[in-house]
Amino acid sequence: MRALGASKVSLSSISSEVLWRASGRLESVGSELFRVKDRNEANLLLSPTHEEEITTLVASLIKSYRDLPLRLYQVSRKYRDERRPRQGLLRAKEFVMKDLYTFDTTEHWARVTYTEVQAAYKAFFDELGIPYLVAEADSGAMGGNLSHEYHFESQQGEDKIMCCDSCNYVANEEVARRRPGAEASTESLAALRVWLGVSKDRKTFVAAWFPGTDGGGSASKDEVNLHALKAAEPTLDTAVEDPSRLWREFTKPRKIIHLLDPRLRLPQGESRLLETSNGASGLVKSLRASLTSNSTRTTPLEVSSIRTGDACPMCNEGSLLVRQVVEVGHTFHLGHRYSKPLSARYKNEANANTDCEMGCHGIGVSRLVGAVAGIMADDKGLNWPPGIAPFEVVVVRGKENAEDAEKLYDGIIGSAHTPALDVVLDDRDRTIAYKLKDADQIGYPVIVVLGKTWAGKRKKAEIQCRRLGVIELIGEDEVAERVAECLRRLKSSVSS
Amino acid sequence: MRALGASKVSLSSISSEVLWRASGRLESVGSELFRVKDRNEANLLLSPTHEEEITTLVASLIKSYRDLPLRLYQVSRKYRDERRPRQGLLRAKEFVMKDLYTFDTTEHWARVTYTEVQAAYKAFFDELGIPYLVAEADSGAMGGNLSHEYHFESQQGEDKIMCCDSCNYVANEEVARRRPGAEASTESLAALRVWLGVSKDRKTFVAAWFPGTDGGGSASKDEVNLHALKAAEPTLDTAVEDPSRLWREFTKPRKIIHLLDPRLRLPQGESRLLETSNGASGLVKSLRASLTSNSTRTTPLEVSSIRTGDACPMCNEGSLLVRQVVEVGHTFHLGHRYSKPLSARYKNEANANTDCEMGCHGIGVSRLVGAVAGIMADDKGLNWPPGIAPFEVVVVRGKENAEDAEKLYDGIIGSAHTPALDVVLDDRDRTIAYKLKDADQIGYPVIVVLGKTWAGKRKKAEIQCRRLGVIELIGEDEVAERVAECLRRLKSSVSS
Repeated sequence: MRALGASKVSLSSISSEVLWRASGRLESVGSELFRVKDRNEANLLLSPTHEEEITTLVASLIKSYRDLPLRLYQVSRKYRDERRPRQGLLRAKEFVMKDLYTFDTTEHWARVTYTEVQAAYKAFFDELGIPYLVAEADSGAMGGNLSHEYHFESQQGEDKIMCCDSCNYVANEEVARRRPGAEASTESLAALRVWLGVSKDRKTFVAAWFPGTDGGGSASKDEVNLHALKAAEPTLDTAVEDPSRLWREFTKPRKIIHLLDPRLRLPQGESRLLETSNGASGLVKSLRASLTSNSTRTTPLEVSSIRTGDACPMCNEGSLLVRQVVEVGHTFHLGHRYSKPLSARYKNEANANTDCEMGCHGIGVSRLVGAVAGIMADDKGLNWPPGIAPFEVVVVRGKENAEDAEKLYDGIIGSAHTPALDVVLDDRDRTIAYKLKDADQIGYPVIVVLGKTWAGKRKKAEIQCRRLGVIELIGEDEVAERVAECLRRLKSSVSS
Repeated sequence: MRALGASKVSLSSISSEVLWRASGRLESVGSELFRVKDRNEANLLLSPTHEEEITTLVASLIKSYRDLPLRLYQVSRKYRDERRPRQGLLRAKEFVMKDLYTFDTTEHWARVTYTEVQAAYKAFFDELGIPYLVAEADSGAMGGNLSHEYHFESQQGEDKIMCCDSCNYVANEEVARRRPGAEASTESLAALRVWLGVSKDRKTFVAAWFPGTDGGGSASKDEVNLHALKAAEPTLDTAVEDPSRLWREFTKPRKIIHLLDPRLRLPQGESRLLETSNGASGLVKSLRASLTSNSTRTTPLEVSSIRTGDACPMCNEGSLLVRQVVEVGHTFHLGHRYSKPLSARYKNEANANTDCEMGCHGIGVSRLVGAVAGIMADDKGLNWPPGIAPFEVVVVRGKENAEDAEKLYDGIIGSAHTPALDVVLDDRDRTIAYKLKDADQIGYPVIVVLGKTWAGKRKKAEIQCRRLGVIELIGEDEVAERVAECLRRLKSSVSS
């Protein structure tokens, strides 16, 4: 954040419904907001993010183009009334975020800012040394490639991203596409699948059609791209367990919207679709009848979930690979999304009032800690990358080496080989075995032991680095140098 | 906190009613708690303090006396649904606290810890260089002088403390006493005053009697010691505006509790009290009649507010001075208050389960910032003590001195005279006059100006320190030394 020239702020975590109503988000995010009332019945909320607060603050501070650009960040608690809090720090109702908000004069400068923020985020993830993926994400109203997510691959992850095995195409579930030309085979058309959904008011049904790969009939939630369906039909309620029951019970004329997979280019028109029907249940038959008789069908869209093996939309050779990931960061160009409704304006050089161009960029601090813990741990304990380890080195000593350990500790801290290093000395009154087990569990990147090999005239410290498989006896004078080398190797070994 | 060997933790700010019910505080603090419900209707709350959370956490971690002592602190947001939020950071619904929780094996060691924490707090306030007062405070169930408050004197303050002008007695309103032997004169007895209160259920009245100084009759809220009255009669509702109306309207037999000032040693028994009555309103007469006919009177207690000039209880010569203050810190020995109900136990050397001895100690970070701003500001702007100034020094330069200013800036940072100093370079494209006004408003302790006096061959920087009245021209080589001297003088000048 310093490299970006961003200033640190600390905004109230209690916000007001008034602001969220002004931005229009009270309704859209509403169900995940923690609402609070104070003793005067004021309608407050615990902020899950601070666009409304920061935009209002900046609106009150800036006057002229000379006051811009502004880059403001904070590291603070955020709150979300999660439907499914789980996996400890990965998805909790209270979490820590680093959020950066950027304010620029024009879209040109906002894009420059965006590029700089991306570079800073990549530098941070590079320093962590854990492989990460940068995926195209939904950029909402703005269009263009101006929203990216930063992911760690992890079996704990609840998100999916699609990566090409040939080119550098990476996109999240919401925006990923198949190669448009790739049509389904006649065989898969025969096995046409359908997923039925219903709107929040239970009055409109949505039927999503796509080529089947393993038999026809009605499809499950996992098989359809709910993001795409919701984008096409925002009233869709994806939480309903059994819409087909509602469909059957519905007596009045049913309104139905058909959403078609782009691969469904039917060779002989729509009627053929009905004739190829096979293995379909009564429900599917009834829906197919509706498909031909109903005219509210929308343009084709990516109805079914992308699967490993689908064709890449960016290159001719590649096929997509679906990866399970944890999202740990997001960069987002917002344009006037908040500056317009919340009046964050400046006077430009021609003295005309102009809306700020905004961006918001976040790193999920507590989630990142949880994800790194999960990814790096082995059966002996945690394994913190030097970049985020609270202490890069622990010095473990036996009772008899108390004085020498302090000297060695001071030596590592004062050495030119290891400048600005955080080192901790385990001077507890416990056995070396106990302390070493503890050190492994805690996950210090490097352990320096003053035990038996230090006794008498030997004076050899043992350097341990579990991840590199290093266990070496080193003379007093070379400890700092060897520690520095381990830390260097730790970074390059993992990120490569 | 490092000097105390305390470890930093970060507890959830969302807590649960279950814990607060277990400690018995849900009822007592209840009205100031922000309650929150999640989507599953779980009863949550925003923690105003973390005794319940930390005690539960520690209870799950410690087993043996070998695991103690433990000292854990955090710097985090706290929440209180204040009746009267005001004065910006001084009293807000959301605020930042540094809170330390200590766990010891025995009361002896807990007292040692307490003394160490007090020393650390004093060292911190000494470093700020703003005069502060340490007052005895209510230590609740524990007894002894094991609760202290740390105050800044300030007209913005909402608290009062009493200081002896002769000895070192300092106490807050709740515990301050007058010299017990000091009796009221016959004259003041003649001017007996009474304050009437009523219980929360409106069924019991409280009459507080004390010698008057300016005429007899009924007394106002400011004249009585509400803390003492509430301690004597916990059901008392101090928020009722006009209890005398309730007294007059009450038709059933009224229950009344009389609380007597210890100075009311009536020369000829209780009856004399009625006979000396003068200038009393009908209400007071009616209450006096009740005083003689009613037997539920409690033992004498410090009923009326202490006033400047009252006799000191600790020495023979001194009289008390009432000072208006802002409380910025508190140290508190808790004993078993939380460890017992929340089962924070350890096995002692005889293998017996024993409750931990706890302490809690807080510094109001955001309130301190607000108080310091109010106390130190003058008509030109803020004035941060070097100890908490985000930057101790600002370098302000004109356009033509951009390069030289960077060199000077690097020189100050790199100088042995000013190690570990935070310096900021104001390189904005503005006039020197604009930047200097800004620097004064922001309140940097020391300002270094590269303006006209730097031009040509003069190369003199101007050192400004508003609080010390310093404006001096200094040659390039001596700037760091002079800056260091100003910072040193700033500390000693204010604290003396």
